[in-house]
Amino acid sequence: MPVLVMKFGGTSVANIDRIRRAAKRVGIEVANGYDVIVIVSAMSGETNKLVSYVDDVSPLYDAREYDAVVSSGENVTAGLMALTLQEMDVPARSWQGWQVPVQTTSAHSAARIEAIPSENIMAKFSQGMRVAVVAGFQGVSPEGRITTLGRGGSDTTAVAFAAAFDAERCDIYTDVDGVYTTDPRIAGKARKLEKISFEEMLELASLGAKVLQTRSVELAMRFGVRLRVLSSFEEYDETAGTLICAEEDIVENKPVVGIAASRDEAKMTLVSVADRPGIAAAIFGPLSEHAVNVDMIIQNIAEEGRTDMTFSCPIDQVKRAEKALNEAKEKGEINFHDLIADTEVAKVSAVGIGMRSQSGVAAKMFQTLRDEGINIKVISTSEIKISVLIDRKYMELAVQALHDAFELEKAS
Amino acid sequence: MPVLVMKFGGTSVANIDRIRRAAKRVGIEVANGYDVIVIVSAMSGETNKLVSYVDDVSPLYDAREYDAVVSSGENVTAGLMALTLQEMDVPARSWQGWQVPVQTTSAHSAARIEAIPSENIMAKFSQGMRVAVVAGFQGVSPEGRITTLGRGGSDTTAVAFAAAFDAERCDIYTDVDGVYTTDPRIAGKARKLEKISFEEMLELASLGAKVLQTRSVELAMRFGVRLRVLSSFEEYDETAGTLICAEEDIVENKPVVGIAASRDEAKMTLVSVADRPGIAAAIFGPLSEHAVNVDMIIQNIAEEGRTDMTFSCPIDQVKRAEKALNEAKEKGEINFHDLIADTEVAKVSAVGIGMRSQSGVAAKMFQTLRDEGINIKVISTSEIKISVLIDRKYMELAVQALHDAFELEKAS
Repeated sequence: MPVLVMKFGGTSVANIDRIRRAAKRVGIEVANGYDVIVIVSAMSGETNKLVSYVDDVSPLYDAREYDAVVSSGENVTAGLMALTLQEMDVPARSWQGWQVPVQTTSAHSAARIEAIPSENIMAKFSQGMRVAVVAGFQGVSPEGRITTLGRGGSDTTAVAFAAAFDAERCDIYTDVDGVYTTDPRIAGKARKLEKISFEEMLELASLGAKVLQTRSVELAMRFGVRLRVLSSFEEYDETAGTLICAEEDIVENKPVVGIAASRDEAKMTLVSVADRPGIAAAIFGPLSEHAVNVDMIIQNIAEEGRTDMTFSCPIDQVKRAEKALNEAKEKGEINFHDLIADTEVAKVSAVGIGMRSQSGVAAKMFQTLRDEGINIKVISTSEIKISVLIDRKYMELAVQALHDAFELEKAS
Repeated sequence: MPVLVMKFGGTSVANIDRIRRAAKRVGIEVANGYDVIVIVSAMSGETNKLVSYVDDVSPLYDAREYDAVVSSGENVTAGLMALTLQEMDVPARSWQGWQVPVQTTSAHSAARIEAIPSENIMAKFSQGMRVAVVAGFQGVSPEGRITTLGRGGSDTTAVAFAAAFDAERCDIYTDVDGVYTTDPRIAGKARKLEKISFEEMLELASLGAKVLQTRSVELAMRFGVRLRVLSSFEEYDETAGTLICAEEDIVENKPVVGIAASRDEAKMTLVSVADRPGIAAAIFGPLSEHAVNVDMIIQNIAEEGRTDMTFSCPIDQVKRAEKALNEAKEKGEINFHDLIADTEVAKVSAVGIGMRSQSGVAAKMFQTLRDEGINIKVISTSEIKISVLIDRKYMELAVQALHDAFELEKAS
């Protein structure tokens, strides 16, 4: 029988009633003729509770013990989901990560899945079991310790199972009914997308649309897993949610499919850096060593051998960045007059595969912002994305104006 | 280094502060030169919460899934305890049941430990780790599924580790400071025992003194594990708690060491049973098949080929017992006029190894009860125990009177 992977997030299994509701959806797919692999998150709030225990005990914790503690929430949901399905006469059993086993690297709290042997579960399917309920977010290291995949890791578990079992589709049930052209809380005209390409979703996911863990989209793209995001709270039909798929499967071809916005950015400016060959390496080397994720970079034209260098990074890495750069200055590796952190900024991005073939997208974006009197601080572009850093107070205005300018409320 | 096993029950690890307190005790034993195996229960309330989830989902649950769910509480505590010890600079790590592995039978929810390979943990001890924190109550079946050992199973885990690692002692930290001559809530004069023999503890444990899981005492007796019960809430000293040990190690030799009382009994009477050879088998066979634990049995002298048969069983098995006997009657296997269940009874027992060599204990017990005007309904005796079934309303009075009569408030 064809295999379907269904993943239920924390809010979709927040209590026994919701687990029953999710189990009913699973039952429908079983009746449709699928062998189903269900990936479950912890009941919402559980993982946060466990994390707070760990934080309380040990601020600088041993990640191996952290993983052993925080992975337990998923085990509870997996067992309860299997029991609920059995109550509905659907043959089901639960698997914890180590039982499959979901083999991962030893990078605790941010482990990567290396292999998922399918024999055990396939053998049970062939014996009449119809649903394998697997605890998401977790795996086992080569040393036999429990690992976790980072927050949102259950999405990645789901996609990895879909790839390993050659599933027809991977349905991610969550508390939103799909991927939107932008955050509906910011722009009321935001429209749910029927389809979006992996590449676009990846840009949106990493730009702050918190629907899916970025890693899961990467994995889906690499293995060609058809991914669907849909709500577990709405009536189900065949076209529910948003399908994330290969570019070829998308007919609609607007230049921009979505506007992403992120408040979690900071702008750092090194004032009056001595300009010399290798200066960029001297600046960004230490930042990288201190695990600062530099996003946008802008270098002013040098005057009299000195220049200003501006970059952006996540707001919670500002302290680390300052430490890295001041240390490098003390060591004499770089020389600057001042280091200014601006944490009152936001990043707004337009994303769309169509901009590869259609010109004028950047011009339209800049003009729209200019018409609203919004000053652009930093620009960065990729093949399918244009991002700008602006004052945070203008973020909502910028999103709304761009959504209008690119007519994203219209379906085609 | 010598190995010590320390087990902390749910109330001793109920929150982070208590885990810290328990960890401090562990740290002291490490400083004393022990390699320590710590067995932890779930934080108090957690297992009940998980059990209620399962009951809510599925009244007739699959015990394999039940075990997968309810075992998760211990995993959380184990990780948190290891982190807390690390914070105190004590080299520690956690083990879940399957990681040791604690090999059990497949009797889910009531599994028995079959083997505990010591190599993994011993290897870590030899590499400098000082504390192995092990999740109690759980193991893994030959099929690789998670099992649990029944409520209170962490005590059994602790004793089994003490046996497997040839530990010097197994300390059970709980919310009471030892084993008492009787329930202090019933008799204010109850006195904490310094030592008690395995045999006596076994009688007391199975008679309703809920300090230790019966199975753990059996195991300790079989493997000669010196077991100590003590409070995690009191100042520690060398003589804290009660030592449960072999008879030879006890000097004190009173005929009675403790009075146990249990409200969870029911008296069942089969009125006017046709008396014939094999009638006892015909009655108790079906009861055994329906998993009714018959305790005391009394058969009246037959008159005109008919007799009354009385037995006691746990109060929550009365329905099952009635079903078993009525079915047997319908099948014509037994014949009786009436079946009367009396659930307003209590069992009171006097326990002591000394009664083997000292006569007159039974006589003194019966006389004491008579002096208080308490009618004895059923009597049963073993080598080191005399039990009587009485009206429940007299239970406290009987316990107090017997405690006085045997002078249990005095140490010798």
